[in-house]
Amino acid sequence: MPAMDQATEDRDTARVRRSRLSPERERELYEAVVELLGEVGYDGLTMDAVATRTHSSKATLYRQWKGKPQLVATALRHTKPVLLEGVDTGTLRGDLQEIVRCSESARERDAALMRGLAHASHDNPDLHEALRELLIYPEIDALNALLRRAVDRGEIAPDRPALNFVVHMVCGAFIARPLVDGQQPDQTYLLEYIDAVILPALGAA
Amino acid sequence: MPAMDQATEDRDTARVRRSRLSPERERELYEAVVELLGEVGYDGLTMDAVATRTHSSKATLYRQWKGKPQLVATALRHTKPVLLEGVDTGTLRGDLQEIVRCSESARERDAALMRGLAHASHDNPDLHEALRELLIYPEIDALNALLRRAVDRGEIAPDRPALNFVVHMVCGAFIARPLVDGQQPDQTYLLEYIDAVILPALGAA
Repeated sequence: MPAMDQATEDRDTARVRRSRLSPERERELYEAVVELLGEVGYDGLTMDAVATRTHSSKATLYRQWKGKPQLVATALRHTKPVLLEGVDTGTLRGDLQEIVRCSESARERDAALMRGLAHASHDNPDLHEALRELLIYPEIDALNALLRRAVDRGEIAPDRPALNFVVHMVCGAFIARPLVDGQQPDQTYLLEYIDAVILPALGAA
Repeated sequence: MPAMDQATEDRDTARVRRSRLSPERERELYEAVVELLGEVGYDGLTMDAVATRTHSSKATLYRQWKGKPQLVATALRHTKPVLLEGVDTGTLRGDLQEIVRCSESARERDAALMRGLAHASHDNPDLHEALRELLIYPEIDALNALLRRAVDRGEIAPDRPALNFVVHMVCGAFIARPLVDGQQPDQTYLLEYIDAVILPALGAA
């Protein structure tokens, strides 16, 4: 997937660009952006408001993140309740269950935020691009690393075709649940889906 | 799934209610509705315009379909390029491939229409309900009948957990393709997804 290489590269560039702020200061800033986003939505969010709330200069914000779409996408990624990168329990099933368990608490906030952003990104190609490159692709990179570890441990055959479609299966779990069953994708349902669909498709059940 | 029983019942009621029109006349009417929908969108579509275009009285339209949401949902279902109900090739893989092949031609039209309807149904609970009961649930009924035949033929174990999640897997194939890969879900991709994900998850590969 060439798109992933592009994403990895962009992410590395972003890391270098951000290196002047301490991790604590970065974290504080990201949290403020997500908070503002929840209050006023993407269209209502201004770099002025971010600068005021975080006691930064607008020049700093633009220097570090290039623009509003990039700042928003990076803030969303770094305030996620669980970063896939950090998950490594020693088994594929354990890893997938760990992700479900950790993300439970923030799912509702995320769902509302992401619905708003999906809507905004429809009219805003820059935001669409920033979300793909700074939020979605890095997560896919991390998921693929997790799957590669399972292949290395012998849990999945290296040429198993479903390896290319794990994100697609996960998307389906989230999108179809309200549509088909009229319910939210809660923890019980997601754990069942892992055992019924993802592991068998990967031949790892 | 109790929701499906409700859908079946509603569909039967709808059939009785529609019995006064000939199948040809019904088909003509449904095609006119979908045509109008493409021209003016759901919000712009009026029962007056449908009556004029189809040389019907508004009273007839309301008597047969109750209202605009129901008329639109039923018209969409009956103008679909392939009704799942009609597919029965003798094998599960053959059935799934047949569905993909038959729906290829109309996918783009459908995608644009469905995006518009998804947007309209967000502000219109009656439309949301009508789409679920008259379009989505009957398709799920038909898909479950198709799967039951595969179980009866011994292709899928009757207690295979993935049987409850086939719609979820299919949804994922469509939603994730543009998001993750930046491409449309074309026939080649969907046939690959059937062999890589759906059949292995069902233990039928």
